[in-house]
Amino acid sequence: MENQLRTEITTLGEFGLIKHLTENIQLQNPSSKLGVGDDAAVIQYDEGMQTIVTSDMLVEGIHFDLMYVPLKHLGYKSVVVNLSDIYAMNGTPRQIIVSVAISNRFSVEAMDDLYEGIYAACKRYGVDLIGGDTSSSNKGLIISVTALGEAREERIVKRSGAKENELLCVSGDLGSAFLGLQLLEREKRIYLENPKIQPNLEGQSYIVGRQLKPEARKDIIELFQTLELKPTSMIDVSDGLSSEILHLCDQSQTGCRLYEEKIPIAEEARAMAFQFNLDPTTCALNGGEDYELLFTIDQSDYEKVKNNPDISVIGNMTSKEKGAVLITRSNNIYPLTAQGWNAFRNN
Amino acid sequence: MENQLRTEITTLGEFGLIKHLTENIQLQNPSSKLGVGDDAAVIQYDEGMQTIVTSDMLVEGIHFDLMYVPLKHLGYKSVVVNLSDIYAMNGTPRQIIVSVAISNRFSVEAMDDLYEGIYAACKRYGVDLIGGDTSSSNKGLIISVTALGEAREERIVKRSGAKENELLCVSGDLGSAFLGLQLLEREKRIYLENPKIQPNLEGQSYIVGRQLKPEARKDIIELFQTLELKPTSMIDVSDGLSSEILHLCDQSQTGCRLYEEKIPIAEEARAMAFQFNLDPTTCALNGGEDYELLFTIDQSDYEKVKNNPDISVIGNMTSKEKGAVLITRSNNIYPLTAQGWNAFRNN
Repeated sequence: MENQLRTEITTLGEFGLIKHLTENIQLQNPSSKLGVGDDAAVIQYDEGMQTIVTSDMLVEGIHFDLMYVPLKHLGYKSVVVNLSDIYAMNGTPRQIIVSVAISNRFSVEAMDDLYEGIYAACKRYGVDLIGGDTSSSNKGLIISVTALGEAREERIVKRSGAKENELLCVSGDLGSAFLGLQLLEREKRIYLENPKIQPNLEGQSYIVGRQLKPEARKDIIELFQTLELKPTSMIDVSDGLSSEILHLCDQSQTGCRLYEEKIPIAEEARAMAFQFNLDPTTCALNGGEDYELLFTIDQSDYEKVKNNPDISVIGNMTSKEKGAVLITRSNNIYPLTAQGWNAFRNN
Repeated sequence: MENQLRTEITTLGEFGLIKHLTENIQLQNPSSKLGVGDDAAVIQYDEGMQTIVTSDMLVEGIHFDLMYVPLKHLGYKSVVVNLSDIYAMNGTPRQIIVSVAISNRFSVEAMDDLYEGIYAACKRYGVDLIGGDTSSSNKGLIISVTALGEAREERIVKRSGAKENELLCVSGDLGSAFLGLQLLEREKRIYLENPKIQPNLEGQSYIVGRQLKPEARKDIIELFQTLELKPTSMIDVSDGLSSEILHLCDQSQTGCRLYEEKIPIAEEARAMAFQFNLDPTTCALNGGEDYELLFTIDQSDYEKVKNNPDISVIGNMTSKEKGAVLITRSNNIYPLTAQGWNAFRNN
């Protein structure tokens, strides 16, 4: 390893660090009335607009492993997972607030990397960082992001709006982020056993990218506007398809039939699942961290999505009594269970 | 210690825990359009209102010590410190979002205690908990709170509005929270040396209360409305009077003369300072965590505050060239320095 420059955070102090990290911010949105530097941030939206706000905390050793997650990617991802929640309301993210706690093992340069990723996400998605704080931790890195966005009241899509006979759709493909994680953890184990062996991620850039640098589906929300399509319910896929379907069913008081053959899974993910002796469908159902949008639409809107390569119709909503079930390729019926990403990971 | 009921968090799971912690919420404000249970929360304020948002993270071992901070008080305080930031903008807090990461050493009952404090603060200050998440940590407890509030644009008070010749005022008294902390830490050391000795906090309920269960100055903001008084600049005292004065001066491009004899210090705090061989003024200047409001007003508004026991005029603003200085009782002049609470604490 090269002898890299290391500036101790103590040389800047807390206020110095905040200034250092935020002095180049240029607010992008007219609604960002007051950003970093006061007690709180002020935003003002147009009349008729509603403010959407969401928050997520990422803890080192629980949500990420710095052995294979570059800090820049981590900063990017910590923003994206929050924006994904705003999009899942059919809203437009406008502002974020970021709080970070760090132990003294992190240098200013490390924080620069983290914020480089944060600002890259801000630029990509057109949001403003308007506040936050940094503090110490005894051990490890903790990142808490709050995102705020706007939507006209009549555009907001909740989890609770699905009805019987509606179509269940999902954007993109599922399971890749989880398989990317499996690959990264395998290479980490190999490296820990023999540090001379370099990680072999060749040909796996798609699934590794899905894990390390996920994107939120801004494009799908924009597509809805172009298509004049308003989903009846929506949620983003963070814990796994199965868990999210159960949320929609629970809050909409419906059942659901999910068809295994319709679940979109990328070829690279499928191949990696076989390498790991995992069922690709199980990875899609329980893997999580895909940050795709799962939503329901009225049957009359089917024409608007049927030929779109970014959207798959994967099932239909039924009455609550019928429950939420998976119809397998071999036509067996299994109830969906909320295994979730963390539980799966600990197997 | 009694054999208390302990329910492992694993028996509820993440979603079960969130439901358990939030199922009794009753939204208080019409502007809370959608609370816990969807991807994000939705708020809508009246036309002409601006949304104020602020966030703080509290980390075990850094910001609090569970050896002497009851979880209920911690929950209460974690909300109050954020509301204090909204009041410091002359705004009215309306909603909070709380994210918590916990290690498996915490039980459901422990989380209940924490949230009992959170909800007590919500009730006291009329705010709604509208979202958040809980996750695991490898070690310790981390709490991140985001508060949102509203204010008419023309009512918002920034740090940057102070002008030469204006009066510098502060609510309540200063230094007590710091001295309460000193006392709690002394009793902790005594207890660790000999666990048979029970903490002696007798006659110290004021300073201990100021540390463990601070209040935000909602009453002062309401008083401003009653008095038809708008401060020209304002900040809450979280890091210590000295540091906050320097923030006002820096952002307003002014200097300041602070008079030692005018700094409000409670008798109990003064007595404890002498016990610890500390200078009470130094405790007020650098102690922090008082959550009082420091603000400037035009001289023509002096009549409105001069007889109010909750407000002290402690100095006046000068030109930037004159710097921010303390005039001691013996008429010496010292430049104010931003020692800050954390630095002080580590002495």
